[in-house]
Amino acid sequence: MSAAEGVPALLAVLDLVGVAVFAASGASAAIGKRLDLFGVAFVGVVAALGGGVVRDLVTGDVPPLAFVRWPYVTVAAVVSLLVFYVHPQLSRLRKAMLLLDAAGLGLFTVVGTLKATDAGVPPMGSCLIGMITGIGGGLGRDLLTGEIPVVLRREIYAVASLLGAVATTAAAALSLPRPAAALAAATLVFVVRVLALYRKWSAPVAGAGRT
Amino acid sequence: MSAAEGVPALLAVLDLVGVAVFAASGASAAIGKRLDLFGVAFVGVVAALGGGVVRDLVTGDVPPLAFVRWPYVTVAAVVSLLVFYVHPQLSRLRKAMLLLDAAGLGLFTVVGTLKATDAGVPPMGSCLIGMITGIGGGLGRDLLTGEIPVVLRREIYAVASLLGAVATTAAAALSLPRPAAALAAATLVFVVRVLALYRKWSAPVAGAGRT
Amino acid sequence: MSAAEGVPALLAVLDLVGVAVFAASGASAAIGKRLDLFGVAFVGVVAALGGGVVRDLVTGDVPPLAFVRWPYVTVAAVVSLLVFYVHPQLSRLRKAMLLLDAAGLGLFTVVGTLKATDAGVPPMGSCLIGMITGIGGGLGRDLLTGEIPVVLRREIYAVASLLGAVATTAAAALSLPRPAAALAAATLVFVVRVLALYRKWSAPVAGAGRT
Repeated sequence: MSAAEGVPALLAVLDLVGVAVFAASGASAAIGKRLDLFGVAFVGVVAALGGGVVRDLVTGDVPPLAFVRWPYVTVAAVVSLLVFYVHPQLSRLRKAMLLLDAAGLGLFTVVGTLKATDAGVPPMGSCLIGMITGIGGGLGRDLLTGEIPVVLRREIYAVASLLGAVATTAAAALSLPRPAAALAAATLVFVVRVLALYRKWSAPVAGAGRT
Repeated sequence: MSAAEGVPALLAVLDLVGVAVFAASGASAAIGKRLDLFGVAFVGVVAALGGGVVRDLVTGDVPPLAFVRWPYVTVAAVVSLLVFYVHPQLSRLRKAMLLLDAAGLGLFTVVGTLKATDAGVPPMGSCLIGMITGIGGGLGRDLLTGEIPVVLRREIYAVASLLGAVATTAAAALSLPRPAAALAAATLVFVVRVLALYRKWSAPVAGAGRT
Repeated sequence: MSAAEGVPALLAVLDLVGVAVFAASGASAAIGKRLDLFGVAFVGVVAALGGGVVRDLVTGDVPPLAFVRWPYVTVAAVVSLLVFYVHPQLSRLRKAMLLLDAAGLGLFTVVGTLKATDAGVPPMGSCLIGMITGIGGGLGRDLLTGEIPVVLRREIYAVASLLGAVATTAAAALSLPRPAAALAAATLVFVVRVLALYRKWSAPVAGAGRT
């Protein structure tokens, strides 16, 4: 598959790790909504592959990797089923889901940004595509399960992703060593997202304290 | 249009029949929601063409056939308007909608799977694309009308589509005669879906009867 | 960027004006929902760029212009932030949002229709793509903020867009001077949409007064 060759080994591995954690995040959310086996698998696969499919569509890499390379959907489906059958008590799922989601956000953001940069998209567009790759799966998961999309809640989410995308683009512009820069940027996203959750960071609301 | 040439005659005909039944299904759902004439036409057209547009985007057939060949949108709009003006009593619509939806699910699944296979997508990806083609229109219809997406309800829906996609892919791999195989696979989807509705088949829910 | 060269200067300018007004419309809607700074920026950017991204995907212009040319996202983000920080009292926002939305609907419809026509899409498909370009951003805005999509409410919306798309296609077929025709068609959409709002025009509902 010539489409697959364009993604270096590091990106491919990070991509699959991101698929696994987002599948777990989607499956956990679906279990929390009391969906059945197939609903859980469906939401898990959408959360895992949604962002990457959009990334590939907008960078012109069709058919998207998720349809060309069998490990993607296999990993997403197997992880979703594992979560369904071996998940611990439901009460613990929410916290695990948030951490997995933060990790997936970081990985997908970096992979998406690098893929767009490699495809010749200018820096600002690459940052946007990286953010869409990062938040796309979670957005699909939330729309399917009827939750307020996580990107709109009063928590730092899309902004954490955007920071990681900017860091990735800057590192690429400075020709910093890619594996280290990718890992650092993904970690940045994870740390910012988790800190925002634990410290309850939030952004201002229009009109509050004025009039 | 070179894009259109790639679809053999059988696929083109099945595709248009699927467009008609999904338009009727979407229009019926919209009438049930008391939408006005244009809302009914809009939901009917989205239900009819949504799955195919996504199929064409991910297989790289742009502009999608729905925009290139005028019969698609014409059939979708005319059927939607017919349902609006000549529909029988509203009380009978729900059952008719479910049967039409099952027929459309089978037809679109088979057409989408074959188109992906013909485009060189590997078997697992072709099955996924077939399923997306089948369920895409209904998903759009449900998101627009504020229903819980049919693919997430406790009924066999996406799975029926997936079975048909696997059967279609297997038949292609075995070089079985295409028209007969396509008809058989579409019928399989229809029968599984309708049986699931009437027998109230459902899949397990996490934690039920365990813990 | 070769992708950018295909859009003549007039279209590019109209496109950016449409981006600005739709960003303001999306940001206003998000402020009305009490979203925070980032939520407002996110909804504003989606409302501003969503229709154009879909337009570019279906006409095969990838990466979409919104990712290739930095002014798009810059204008969308800056306008959203301006609306957030300098908006007048919230009570006045709804009317302004409706007028801005009508203007954006007209501009995006015309730009989308012309772009599809220039890409060789047949007239009926060009009208559809023009309408999708016009209504896409508002649809994304409404899905994100949990509103009933404006295209389904009992108001003339998608139909106003479709009228403008048909007028644009007809003018192109008759080789009328493009700038004047584009302005006239965008104005037609705006006037029809605003009249529909003020006169409370609506379409029939199935079964009303019959049965």
